[in-house]
Amino acid sequence: MIYVILDNGKELAKTALGAEGYVPWEKVKQTGDVIRRLKQEGFRVIALEQDRRAINIRDYRLRHSQKYALIVGYEVRGIDKRILSRCDKIIYIPMFGKKESLNVSVAFGVAGYLLKFKKQTAKSKNIKQSSKIK
Amino acid sequence: MIYVILDNGKELAKTALGAEGYVPWEKVKQTGDVIRRLKQEGFRVIALEQDRRAINIRDYRLRHSQKYALIVGYEVRGIDKRILSRCDKIIYIPMFGKKESLNVSVAFGVAGYLLKFKKQTAKSKNIKQSSKIK
Repeated sequence: MIYVILDNGKELAKTALGAEGYVPWEKVKQTGDVIRRLKQEGFRVIALEQDRRAINIRDYRLRHSQKYALIVGYEVRGIDKRILSRCDKIIYIPMFGKKESLNVSVAFGVAGYLLKFKKQTAKSKNIKQSSKIK
Repeated sequence: MIYVILDNGKELAKTALGAEGYVPWEKVKQTGDVIRRLKQEGFRVIALEQDRRAINIRDYRLRHSQKYALIVGYEVRGIDKRILSRCDKIIYIPMFGKKESLNVSVAFGVAGYLLKFKKQTAKSKNIKQSSKIK
C-alpha cells in the first residue's frame, strides 16, 4: 500500500506509468495522520532520511514477524523534522562519492529491497535457530 | 569507474547532473572489449539481467578479496545475448507485483548497494572466522 502526499494526481500518473492502476495507493493530506494510523495497525514506521539520529540501513535489524512502513520524502527538501520525530526509527543509505543524496526512486528501491532481504534473512535465521533447538 | 556505451555524450550529461565531472567514466564502442579488459585486470564480470541462467541477487555470494564489475543494459532491450554469454555470472533482482523490470538507475542502485553490503559482510565473516581459529 502506498500513501501519497500530492497536490494533484497528475505527477503520480506520469511517474507510475500505469502502475497506479493496480498498486493500491491513497492520496492523503497529512503524513502525521498516516503515521498514527499505521502505528495503530501495528506497523513500525521507519523514515529514510539523512539525519544525525539516523542509523546506517546496513546495521538496521528487522524482525521477521514485524510489519514495517517506510517513509520517503520530497526530493530536495526531504522529510519534515516534525514528521521525523514521530517515526519509530530513522535510517539512511550511506553515500559513496560526492553526491549528497540519491534520487528518491533509487533510494526507495535500495531501501525497499534491502529491508525485504533483511526480513527474509531474519526468517531463515529463525528457522535455523529453531531447528538447532530440536 | 564507469564504462558507457553511447552514441553521444549528451544523454550522459543530462542524466549525470554534474557527476560526469568527477566520477571517472569512459566512452567505449564495444562492450566485449571492456569485458576482456576487465577480466585481464582480475575482475569478475557480473551481468544484471533477467535470463533463464540468472541467479537471484539475494543468493549470490561474493568474496571479499575479489574485484567485481557490474554490467547493466539498455532499458527496454536489455543486455545483448552475446554479451551475457561472455560474463562470469548473470544475476537478477526478483520482482514483486506486476511490472516486469525496474528503471535501470533503480536496478543499478539496488544491485550496487546489495553487492557492496554483501562484500562487506563477507569481510566481517572472514574476520569472525579467523578470530575463532585463534
